[in-house]
Amino acid sequence: MTRLTDKQDAYGHAIYDSYLGKGGYEIDERDDGFVGGVRDAGTYLAAYDEWPPIEREAMEIVKGRILDIGCGAGRHALYLQEKGLDVLGIDVSPLAIKVCKLRGLTQAREMSITQLSRKLGTFDTLLMMGNNFGLFGSFKRAKWLLRRFCGMTSDQARIIAQSSDPYATDEPCHLAYHELNRKRGRMSGQIRLRVRYKTYATPWFDYFLVSRNEMAEIVSGTRWRVGHFAESDGPYYIGVIEKKLPSAR
Amino acid sequence: MTRLTDKQDAYGHAIYDSYLGKGGYEIDERDDGFVGGVRDAGTYLAAYDEWPPIEREAMEIVKGRILDIGCGAGRHALYLQEKGLDVLGIDVSPLAIKVCKLRGLTQAREMSITQLSRKLGTFDTLLMMGNNFGLFGSFKRAKWLLRRFCGMTSDQARIIAQSSDPYATDEPCHLAYHELNRKRGRMSGQIRLRVRYKTYATPWFDYFLVSRNEMAEIVSGTRWRVGHFAESDGPYYIGVIEKKLPSAR
Repeated sequence: MTRLTDKQDAYGHAIYDSYLGKGGYEIDERDDGFVGGVRDAGTYLAAYDEWPPIEREAMEIVKGRILDIGCGAGRHALYLQEKGLDVLGIDVSPLAIKVCKLRGLTQAREMSITQLSRKLGTFDTLLMMGNNFGLFGSFKRAKWLLRRFCGMTSDQARIIAQSSDPYATDEPCHLAYHELNRKRGRMSGQIRLRVRYKTYATPWFDYFLVSRNEMAEIVSGTRWRVGHFAESDGPYYIGVIEKKLPSAR
Repeated sequence: MTRLTDKQDAYGHAIYDSYLGKGGYEIDERDDGFVGGVRDAGTYLAAYDEWPPIEREAMEIVKGRILDIGCGAGRHALYLQEKGLDVLGIDVSPLAIKVCKLRGLTQAREMSITQLSRKLGTFDTLLMMGNNFGLFGSFKRAKWLLRRFCGMTSDQARIIAQSSDPYATDEPCHLAYHELNRKRGRMSGQIRLRVRYKTYATPWFDYFLVSRNEMAEIVSGTRWRVGHFAESDGPYYIGVIEKKLPSAR
């Protein structure tokens, strides 16, 4: 993955403008022409008290050395750093990483999920908050990255991965998109999108939303397994993914 | 102008979904790649009490037979109809007109501003609310339509036209767009845009925002003149445009 140009860093510009108090926002554009999912980028900067309960609860099971994958403006990483934990935030957006540093995150690097490797050392928790299980992008790439994550993590490591069930909708244009995806051999919730903000637009990329069963299926056959799901009032849930340890027998 | 297809009626679908309580929204996409101006289409259905004060005040000077140009979901037309006035709403959006009728507007027609003619009879007030002075589209087309409007209106007729000063911004991407427009011989605030909602997108069209001076300049040389401007707290203003009557001398 080549570095995002400034013009492509739509997500980073939205975050940076929100950091400056200038009301950044994001708009998703999907490859079927759908536009929506308008988000106030201020949520990336939200303080602990403003997070959804499921995100606050997830922080309770975080332990050891932490890698926050797709850390955005660093809201989770900063919270954990303040608790005295050793946390590295990575994000593909140069401006998001700039904002993390401006906000005081000591370990923040511009890096995509596919650039992660054991060169970064060993982690005990991999955080994929805010639907960031979606950063795996596709079934195949998720399997590949989960295998790679094995070599980057301790035996007791956990992946704390948030997603949303794509099937929890009766919106006709979303159902039509699921159907289109299945026809072209993709997962129903595998969204090809770009993020737009003002005149900024990211390159097109894949980001998937999966059901609990799909998450379990993706994880199966790797050396990970879903320990349990944490549920929320909304469409979001968190999969707590643990390592399958070799049988003691 | 050919009729908008269902797929092109982004604005109508947003209004219709809001009418159904399904949270319609609109997103503007400008021809420089800017996306923004996200609007809750519910505002098209807002009741009198929820309107900005300047819109409520404008209703005080409405008189006689009224043509509401770009009537949307009919919020102004319905208010005036309830006051016992004779009002025709026109809009280019089939679904907007459908919603007007569902809400009880007795005179509502699918029609674009360029299709207006004296065949519709004579009006005493032409309403162009909600930035709809912009429907003139360009300097030249505004002059042409203002002349045509002369033949459709009584001697005492008024055009009540809302716009926003495009220069009241320090946003670099808007200032760059103004500069681009001037370079290509367009008015600074002459926006080439399409409206998007879900997978719906209108054709590209011109919609302009003008300063008070520009509105006066556009009107000059026609048989109309700006009587006065009504000001608001926000960027909006209303030009009350009257007919220049032949001198009594």
